[in-house]
Amino acid sequence: MDLFGKDFICTQEWSLDELEAVLELAARMKRERYSPRWTSLLEYKTFLMFFYNPSVRTRQSFETAATELGGHAQFLEPSAMRLKTATTAGETVEDAAQVMSRYGHGLGIRILEDKIGYYGEGDELLREYARWGSIPVISMAHDKFHPCQGLADLMGLRARLGDVRGKKALLTWGSGALARSWCSVQEFLLVSSRFGMNVTMAYPEGYDLDPAVIAQTQANCAANGMTFEVVHDSRSGYDGADVVYARNWVTPQAYAGGLLDKKGEIEKAFQHPGWITDAERMRKTNNALFTHPMPVDRGHEVTDEIASGPNSIIYDVAENRLHVQKALMALTMSDKL
Amino acid sequence: MDLFGKDFICTQEWSLDELEAVLELAARMKRERYSPRWTSLLEYKTFLMFFYNPSVRTRQSFETAATELGGHAQFLEPSAMRLKTATTAGETVEDAAQVMSRYGHGLGIRILEDKIGYYGEGDELLREYARWGSIPVISMAHDKFHPCQGLADLMGLRARLGDVRGKKALLTWGSGALARSWCSVQEFLLVSSRFGMNVTMAYPEGYDLDPAVIAQTQANCAANGMTFEVVHDSRSGYDGADVVYARNWVTPQAYAGGLLDKKGEIEKAFQHPGWITDAERMRKTNNALFTHPMPVDRGHEVTDEIASGPNSIIYDVAENRLHVQKALMALTMSDKL
Amino acid sequence: MDLFGKDFICTQEWSLDELEAVLELAARMKRERYSPRWTSLLEYKTFLMFFYNPSVRTRQSFETAATELGGHAQFLEPSAMRLKTATTAGETVEDAAQVMSRYGHGLGIRILEDKIGYYGEGDELLREYARWGSIPVISMAHDKFHPCQGLADLMGLRARLGDVRGKKALLTWGSGALARSWCSVQEFLLVSSRFGMNVTMAYPEGYDLDPAVIAQTQANCAANGMTFEVVHDSRSGYDGADVVYARNWVTPQAYAGGLLDKKGEIEKAFQHPGWITDAERMRKTNNALFTHPMPVDRGHEVTDEIASGPNSIIYDVAENRLHVQKALMALTMSDKL
Repeated sequence: MDLFGKDFICTQEWSLDELEAVLELAARMKRERYSPRWTSLLEYKTFLMFFYNPSVRTRQSFETAATELGGHAQFLEPSAMRLKTATTAGETVEDAAQVMSRYGHGLGIRILEDKIGYYGEGDELLREYARWGSIPVISMAHDKFHPCQGLADLMGLRARLGDVRGKKALLTWGSGALARSWCSVQEFLLVSSRFGMNVTMAYPEGYDLDPAVIAQTQANCAANGMTFEVVHDSRSGYDGADVVYARNWVTPQAYAGGLLDKKGEIEKAFQHPGWITDAERMRKTNNALFTHPMPVDRGHEVTDEIASGPNSIIYDVAENRLHVQKALMALTMSDKL
Repeated sequence: MDLFGKDFICTQEWSLDELEAVLELAARMKRERYSPRWTSLLEYKTFLMFFYNPSVRTRQSFETAATELGGHAQFLEPSAMRLKTATTAGETVEDAAQVMSRYGHGLGIRILEDKIGYYGEGDELLREYARWGSIPVISMAHDKFHPCQGLADLMGLRARLGDVRGKKALLTWGSGALARSWCSVQEFLLVSSRFGMNVTMAYPEGYDLDPAVIAQTQANCAANGMTFEVVHDSRSGYDGADVVYARNWVTPQAYAGGLLDKKGEIEKAFQHPGWITDAERMRKTNNALFTHPMPVDRGHEVTDEIASGPNSIIYDVAENRLHVQKALMALTMSDKL
Repeated sequence: MDLFGKDFICTQEWSLDELEAVLELAARMKRERYSPRWTSLLEYKTFLMFFYNPSVRTRQSFETAATELGGHAQFLEPSAMRLKTATTAGETVEDAAQVMSRYGHGLGIRILEDKIGYYGEGDELLREYARWGSIPVISMAHDKFHPCQGLADLMGLRARLGDVRGKKALLTWGSGALARSWCSVQEFLLVSSRFGMNVTMAYPEGYDLDPAVIAQTQANCAANGMTFEVVHDSRSGYDGADVVYARNWVTPQAYAGGLLDKKGEIEKAFQHPGWITDAERMRKTNNALFTHPMPVDRGHEVTDEIASGPNSIIYDVAENRLHVQKALMALTMSDKL
């Protein structure tokens, strides 16, 4: 298996064997974090990070990953680039990507809903960079997917549950004031279904996600002989769950006006205040783990009791981002592995 | 003595032995700047720098310090973080600090008066990060204190004076157009008094500093059998001084409106134009050294003749920031010392 | 030849032998990019990058250069510095430069026309930093010159043409919507004439460049027994050219109002829509190479066919920025060469 140079835009586009290779290396890197086996894998090499959207956690985990592999991550804000668009003059992605490929060994891109004109435009941009560049493009979260988060989630579940096959994952919408992207929850649907879980989604009417992602999730479940279910109440999904993943997300109408209507989305979300993961709901589960891609909107998405409780794996999952990303960068960018 | 993991928020909270350990290591690191004894102390390790307020000198000296220890400092601007406040949804410090502790080995925070709602709020924030995080929190200047500057000042004085015990330090207010924080001058009061100097403060009526800091300074002087004195004229304090530290600072009313009234403070400051360190005043001293934490407001706080004269140690003190911070980072973050 | 500590503000100020030393080392570094001969030249050392103007390519290439030499480049935005100006209080360059010299081993500065009050002010600022600092100042593009681009251009031409002496270079103005600085094209005039090319400039009436640069270009050509010619039509200059360099630039009136009138300049530029490098014009040349300092304004300055064609060396030249800058940093900042 040769992953050198391979783009990582969505887990679904990699084979299970390839994803297992990343997870296995990530687990070894976690056990022996500063082993000399890893610390020179990207020595003197550069990972270019394009943050169309700001981030603290993603920035920290990718930049730390490069440092721990002996390399360097450049923090770049493309607002300084004059890129060509339909209406303005500027540099083409064709040119930008080819030049970056001369300097760096990998290109991370983060672009979320408020920096794009329609759902899917961010995904198209990543693929345009991948088309023209000769170095791997890695999603650091974009409008559609968040593959590093998906692998970190799975790594966290396995650390506590062992094999996840046949377990029940509940992905539940949560109320909240942060108007969240679809990328993390869509990636979780794909990963949990792909690795053999029964998947239940719970969300208020009107909060459908991307139909293509839902169809793929159904197909994944069917291929594994597992169930996929959608409910529209805030309680029944918890029954017998082994994992609860709670998170706010926006409606499909969020982009209707061309730009994300954050204020309108927050108002809509607060029309569903009962959607919170609390101790009462958790008692209906099979002593479920609680997870969340962070930042957590405590008091809206989940109570403090659950977020800080013994079954919460949120910090472990956040830490896994580092290990997963180190493994991924090593496999796709290092010529020493 | 084990300083690994210890927070550094104010020099007063460390024992004299602990501070001497930092100063001794800093002196060795200055003598042998790139010795292999130091250059791998933070190898592959990350120091997270949170700049609520921008800075060039503090940024440069901390980032250079990490590089010279073989590590990497991440330049982070928390404006990109959606932190929870009394009135807005967002991530708690509890969550942010615990995740950062999984990635980094130390956390520097800089937060000054225009980013806070009241005097002391910055100090509270540092202590909240220290409470939840498991890595050392280091002040890179906050509303109350600037401990690295304090140690750099002392290192600079000792290089020229030897032991500072029994010497006279004058801290004098200066006119100027920059509306400065209290952090550097308060730290100087604590350090100079703690290490055995006689301390005189000179400032116009209405420019009192934090009463708790003044009380601690008095207690330090008393414990050492030294004097502490306050004068309200711009000349008498210079008599017999061995060290002159001139610096503008704001009035206690600066925060009355909730946010720093910078314009009003500058207007107030210019009502006291005579407060400048010049050759005539310096002639009254015991051939005193001149120091200042920079940036210097030449022509207001001090004349060019004095700032660039043979007794000015401002560049040496600025350089000492690097050495003090390297020593501090090595002692609190490295497992190789 | 000892280049340690030497400023690099314009190629014209370095001897041909000195420039050849940079180019020779750059060529070796390109051939053996990660050789251990280079990777520790700036180990534990800091290159300070002051970006008054943003940039992606210059940032990427300088930061990558430092990483590949084993060092670290700090990305600094001086807007955070309160520098003294004619009308505002703040820190003097005297102070800032002397402190930076205590931390770093080199200082790169980028300052273009929208950050200055008049043409030449950026150049003065670089020389003021060079005057007070004790570390080399390197232009990362300023209002007058762009010496690293000039050397990268020459390196790209030599890779395809061998010796450039006696070849014909056409520098032609291009229409476009980006209102470009004079720095790159002025540096190309100096470099191409200095290294023995016949130089032709083509531009619409009203687009004169700095008369001092033109006079120096003429003097360079005369010293080499070569010709220097100016034409004001968009076609005749191509006849027999070995190299075509197309680029938009602003009029001398761009600064008349004190600040760059970008909108006005774009309007003016579009009054000359025929000024584009296309296949028809290229057929008049001696199978010329096409070059451009990027970002390319495709469809205005040049057609896609030419920019992406077999004679285009734009990506090679962009890559050369890395190698030239590595060589330059090694020669001026490393004590190990």
